[in-house]
Amino acid sequence: MKSVGLITEYNPFHNGHQYHINQSKKLTNADVTIAIMSGNFVMRGEPAIYNKFTRAKMALSTADLVIELPATASLSSGDHFAELAVKVADYMSVDTIAFGSENNDIKTLKQLAHSINEIEQSESFSQKVKEGKSYPRIISELLEHHEALASPNNILGISYLKAIAKNAKNINAISIKRENAQHHDSLIQHHQFASGTSIRTSIISQDDHWHHVVPKDIQHLYVTPHITLNQIFPYLKYQIIAMTTDSLKNIYTVTEGFENRLKSNIYEATDFHHFVKLLKTKRYTYTHIQRLLMNVLLNIKPTDVTSNIHAVKVLAMNDRGRQYLKHLKTAFPERQYITNINKSNAHYFTNEIKATHIYNAISGQQQTDFNTPVIQQYR
Amino acid sequence: MKSVGLITEYNPFHNGHQYHINQSKKLTNADVTIAIMSGNFVMRGEPAIYNKFTRAKMALSTADLVIELPATASLSSGDHFAELAVKVADYMSVDTIAFGSENNDIKTLKQLAHSINEIEQSESFSQKVKEGKSYPRIISELLEHHEALASPNNILGISYLKAIAKNAKNINAISIKRENAQHHDSLIQHHQFASGTSIRTSIISQDDHWHHVVPKDIQHLYVTPHITLNQIFPYLKYQIIAMTTDSLKNIYTVTEGFENRLKSNIYEATDFHHFVKLLKTKRYTYTHIQRLLMNVLLNIKPTDVTSNIHAVKVLAMNDRGRQYLKHLKTAFPERQYITNINKSNAHYFTNEIKATHIYNAISGQQQTDFNTPVIQQYR
Repeated sequence: MKSVGLITEYNPFHNGHQYHINQSKKLTNADVTIAIMSGNFVMRGEPAIYNKFTRAKMALSTADLVIELPATASLSSGDHFAELAVKVADYMSVDTIAFGSENNDIKTLKQLAHSINEIEQSESFSQKVKEGKSYPRIISELLEHHEALASPNNILGISYLKAIAKNAKNINAISIKRENAQHHDSLIQHHQFASGTSIRTSIISQDDHWHHVVPKDIQHLYVTPHITLNQIFPYLKYQIIAMTTDSLKNIYTVTEGFENRLKSNIYEATDFHHFVKLLKTKRYTYTHIQRLLMNVLLNIKPTDVTSNIHAVKVLAMNDRGRQYLKHLKTAFPERQYITNINKSNAHYFTNEIKATHIYNAISGQQQTDFNTPVIQQYR
Repeated sequence: MKSVGLITEYNPFHNGHQYHINQSKKLTNADVTIAIMSGNFVMRGEPAIYNKFTRAKMALSTADLVIELPATASLSSGDHFAELAVKVADYMSVDTIAFGSENNDIKTLKQLAHSINEIEQSESFSQKVKEGKSYPRIISELLEHHEALASPNNILGISYLKAIAKNAKNINAISIKRENAQHHDSLIQHHQFASGTSIRTSIISQDDHWHHVVPKDIQHLYVTPHITLNQIFPYLKYQIIAMTTDSLKNIYTVTEGFENRLKSNIYEATDFHHFVKLLKTKRYTYTHIQRLLMNVLLNIKPTDVTSNIHAVKVLAMNDRGRQYLKHLKTAFPERQYITNINKSNAHYFTNEIKATHIYNAISGQQQTDFNTPVIQQYR
């Protein structure tokens, strides 16, 4: 069976995602579409608006298989995210990875990936890191023709290409041009496509704009948000007070005395976004800081971080997905394709299970990795 | 100046406490009355219904000085509580400690203290500990004439006497018979005196029974409770999920695999009291378990525990109290009597400051050890 993999967050799923899956399938002639999706916390450094079970169900409207990305993938750098996602794709024996980008010229993106790899090895790069500059700024300073990097999806695409070149040379890559919506748009302006940001805004403010931009047959899944950053903040504040400075220092992605910034700014902060603003320095992007805060919330230490895939969690599958899984299990009997978590395999997913429990403890949601069997229907 | 010290929690202050202070002063002919009071968390293993600043203000209606007991004193055993309280009394150069008891026969209590000291050194005691019995049960099994131990205040009184015999032989002790209210009464049944439990119940249920049993001139201080156990539970649950089993094992008073009980029961628990019930074993009392949970909430480790007094925090004082402090500062220039916490002395009070910040983070209260100067008026 020919397979195409998509690296996704679906926060939440919308027509643009559906278009992306369908185009990927069409362009690669794939038999099966595999969405590799973030769990309960996403790359923006936030809890997802709906939990992973609901989002997997949404995705099953169009994809054949939904696989959970390791929790720590979303909570460090774009490069680490891409690397783990590509490793999951490889574990799923994916033939092609199809990513969305503003620029669907894969050749240019590959050249950029190559140039960036070289820049990262250079002395000027290390020098600028020492000067305290943020990664995106350094790349834009050292890379000629960096216009493509203004678009977040191009940047991610380049990260995928770098990761493929490094860890999974057998996987092909194609890029699908995104339709009609910029990643950061905050209003729904177009008829059929909109950005995740604008859809979340619409859902939170309980207007009905989002109705037009998500597939009709899954609209019943778009209920009140499962969780918001406002709910997260008191717990984060509590944890930063309760933890010693030394413990904060040992949290994943906390470096260079950032633990002291956390301790000294927490009392003044009135809410999550205010706190992030107080913490901002020229070295760190807002996104880096938000991810770091999620690492504090989830108490993730460097030793918790997944760097290789020893098992994958199947969140959702339809008949075609099940068939593909069966094929994989025969081809790779030593691999762990887990559809239902229980005591005997839970140790593979410690971070993901914890993240789900914390998401639930704060939001009051009830679905855990133990009580939620693999999803097989989306209606 | 002749001084009498009272070891207290004032959760909240009521007529019985006022009677106790006045009687102590009268019986000892003291010039100054010193209340040594728990901070924001009390021996029941709970946050206090009002924060320490409000409770100190209430106490200042009758006492001349209010000194904060170290936070960890309230969060281990009655013996540790008594030992630290007596050490604070000694640091305050108190002549006499006056404690309330159901039995005001100090001679009997002293004999009991002596017998219990001997029992604790005995082999039968160690044997029964190994059998998994709780401390109160062992004492009641090994001590003849243990009827006096049925009353919680007698037990505490005996702990004070043991601590005085051990650490502060120069301090006298007297006992004041409690008037008309059992410690655990849950309803206000008498005209002038009532138990702390019944007063808290009355305040929480917003009836006006408590009006009759607290001093008239401080009734304005009895506002809506600052915090409840219902508010605490989600944070406790979050922390037990976020912490690793190993970290829980390192929390003060967590022993013998109790960390596993915490981890395995937290998901089933619907609220604080349900959780405590699920955790109960014959070895541990409810109170021990509640204190242990507060240690988890406050992230207190054995290395955080105060065993000697290097400074005391003055929460409240009137003119007579100030005069006494002045006298102490002259007599003991090397001692630290701190009326206002700032950066230079905050290191003495790390636990107390943290406990206050956590109390505030959960309850929304605003008074911290830094922004609240020593209280000098109660009206």
